[in-house]
Amino acid sequence: RSLATNARQSLKIGMIPADGIGHEVLPGAKAALQALGSSIPKPEFIDLLAGFEHFTKTGTALPEETVEALQKDCDCAMFGAVSSPSRKVAGYSSPIVALRKKMDLYANIRPVSSVSPSPGEQPDVDLVVVRENTECLYVKDEKQTVGPHGKEARATRLITERASRRIGEMAFKIALNRPRKHLTIIHKSNVLSITDGLFRETVRAVPALSGANGQYDSITIAEQLVDSAVYRLFREPHIYDVMVAPNLYGDIISDAAAALVGSLGLVPSVNAGDMFVMGEPVHGSAPDIAGQNVANPLAAIRSAALMLRHLGYGEGASRIERAVDEVIREGRCLTPDLGGRSKTTEVVEEVVKHI
Amino acid sequence: RSLATNARQSLKIGMIPADGIGHEVLPGAKAALQALGSSIPKPEFIDLLAGFEHFTKTGTALPEETVEALQKDCDCAMFGAVSSPSRKVAGYSSPIVALRKKMDLYANIRPVSSVSPSPGEQPDVDLVVVRENTECLYVKDEKQTVGPHGKEARATRLITERASRRIGEMAFKIALNRPRKHLTIIHKSNVLSITDGLFRETVRAVPALSGANGQYDSITIAEQLVDSAVYRLFREPHIYDVMVAPNLYGDIISDAAAALVGSLGLVPSVNAGDMFVMGEPVHGSAPDIAGQNVANPLAAIRSAALMLRHLGYGEGASRIERAVDEVIREGRCLTPDLGGRSKTTEVVEEVVKHI
Ligand SMILES: CC(C)[C@H](C(=O)O)[C@@H](O)C(=O)O
Ligand SMILES: CC(C)[C@H](C(=O)O)[C@@H](O)C(=O)O
Repeated sequence: RSLATNARQSLKIGMIPADGIGHEVLPGAKAALQALGSSIPKPEFIDLLAGFEHFTKTGTALPEETVEALQKDCDCAMFGAVSSPSRKVAGYSSPIVALRKKMDLYANIRPVSSVSPSPGEQPDVDLVVVRENTECLYVKDEKQTVGPHGKEARATRLITERASRRIGEMAFKIALNRPRKHLTIIHKSNVLSITDGLFRETVRAVPALSGANGQYDSITIAEQLVDSAVYRLFREPHIYDVMVAPNLYGDIISDAAAALVGSLGLVPSVNAGDMFVMGEPVHGSAPDIAGQNVANPLAAIRSAALMLRHLGYGEGASRIERAVDEVIREGRCLTPDLGGRSKTTEVVEEVVKHI
Repeated sequence: RSLATNARQSLKIGMIPADGIGHEVLPGAKAALQALGSSIPKPEFIDLLAGFEHFTKTGTALPEETVEALQKDCDCAMFGAVSSPSRKVAGYSSPIVALRKKMDLYANIRPVSSVSPSPGEQPDVDLVVVRENTECLYVKDEKQTVGPHGKEARATRLITERASRRIGEMAFKIALNRPRKHLTIIHKSNVLSITDGLFRETVRAVPALSGANGQYDSITIAEQLVDSAVYRLFREPHIYDVMVAPNLYGDIISDAAAALVGSLGLVPSVNAGDMFVMGEPVHGSAPDIAGQNVANPLAAIRSAALMLRHLGYGEGASRIERAVDEVIREGRCLTPDLGGRSKTTEVVEEVVKHI
């Protein structure tokens, strides 16, 4: 089974709103997908459970049935957002981190761009964070012991050649399809010479290992320590095109980049593997505004477009993306995070009209 | 021996320029200290070696004599900046990371504030990052093995109750002396429930454990996940007063905060322990501009002031800080990173004049 196939009669999409505003933004993604008509196979939505709220009710954050349904019945999925307990809760473990690993969604791809005043103009910020999505400190191999001076906790940070190579390949492929063809490797190998050393050397070796000699010759490669990458992101964001990073650095720099374009409520992502893709807005579950119909649905809607693109439905993806860009450019119908006064559902209607 | 004592006849200061612009900015710190006259005991400067350049010449990044001189002959020290090899170099290990551990300088204190248009006005950004300085991934316990799919590298992230408690105490003490008395604990315990869980619970427990009942009652405590902390730093920096963080997050958020005030070349720090204090600008060795007499000396000069304050010489510290603020406010004599055209040495002279 190939991810990008046109042989589908229908597109079966697992819908996992999870927590908080996840329940309010996923309907936006659904409406946008439905508005595409014959640009894509007829979407069929399959509602699936997960999340911290689900955990507090049932003791399970990610039900086995959800994973099975994704694996057996779905072509792709959309995830909303998860809440984090404010205190340690025995037995709870983040369902999104688990899903990424269980479905082997090894790349978290987060394009961050500002909308230029007119279409076709170069935006100020136009970058993609390509975040490794399965290892680093996210292997969650932690334990606590008691030493002579009290409690001691240790976590393992795992970086493998295999995961670094495949995220590197993904990053090179993405860079090749962008006008600037520039790739920055984010690391901290001045401190972590072995783990981040392996990451950076493996990514650098991708062109040599890729087999197709010279296919990546047009790409320029740079490196940046994660601390100064965050600094430079704020000072000179235009220097970045594609940024490839181990899991935790990718988590942090994508939030940093999101700050540059006005709101986390605009930044989409896909969790992508070779066999499956799951759209997910970069924002969290925002308990402070949940249930008020004011959450920005644009990140979720854009995530649906990204998901389509990864499935090979570029035309459908572009129609959604253009509609979102126009709504932002017009500035008439925006949620409060962007200085507007519109409701979530109004913004969704506006986008649907533009599709 | 107490750190803050007025019994000194002279102040013996170890000077470790290390690499790159470290050699150009430390003379600025020296000149500022000398300009203080009788506000402080007569400074005596002891030149000490360390750095990547020293490693390439001698095979040692941090000579044993440097550590011994600091321990036996110095009251305090100033560190410049270190270069990082661009490729892995066998046997090299960062001398600044080693120094922090060897001298038990467990707190890295990084105040980041913008200079308000007139003295006395509240600056836009006015925060202090209190970074744990001895553990987390900086224990550098790394190894590489070979698994079924190639190389695998693992690093240990260590968080102890003892180190979390003492950095927590430092952060509470600092918060108590600031007008807003607000403390934000930075963590990622939605993923690292055990290590970051220990950090956050231990810091939270500081008031209860401190013995002096109620002494911290006036402090409000907040928490923030590191990714959203970076996001919010850009969007609403005024919400932060004191931020306490494990080592790596502290490294990243202090660079993020530096971006807000115009230049890394402005941000000072001290590495502080119970027995010793070492000033250090937050910026790096900047090989691209080294040797050109254009590096901003203000971060190093401010670091000298911070060092004095930690030694109990608050008046001397304030004189330097006011002089730096005035030079920035006047805007006549600034290095290129701040949009000026002045040389490093000219800025130093200007500060000395204002002292
Ligand atoms: C919710 C959390 C586990 C998650 C992460 O750290 O990956 C989130 O911050 C993200 O970026 O998707
Ligand atoms: C040079 C490097 C080891 C150091 C660190 O990561 O601590 C630097 O970035 C800093 O912030 O002082």
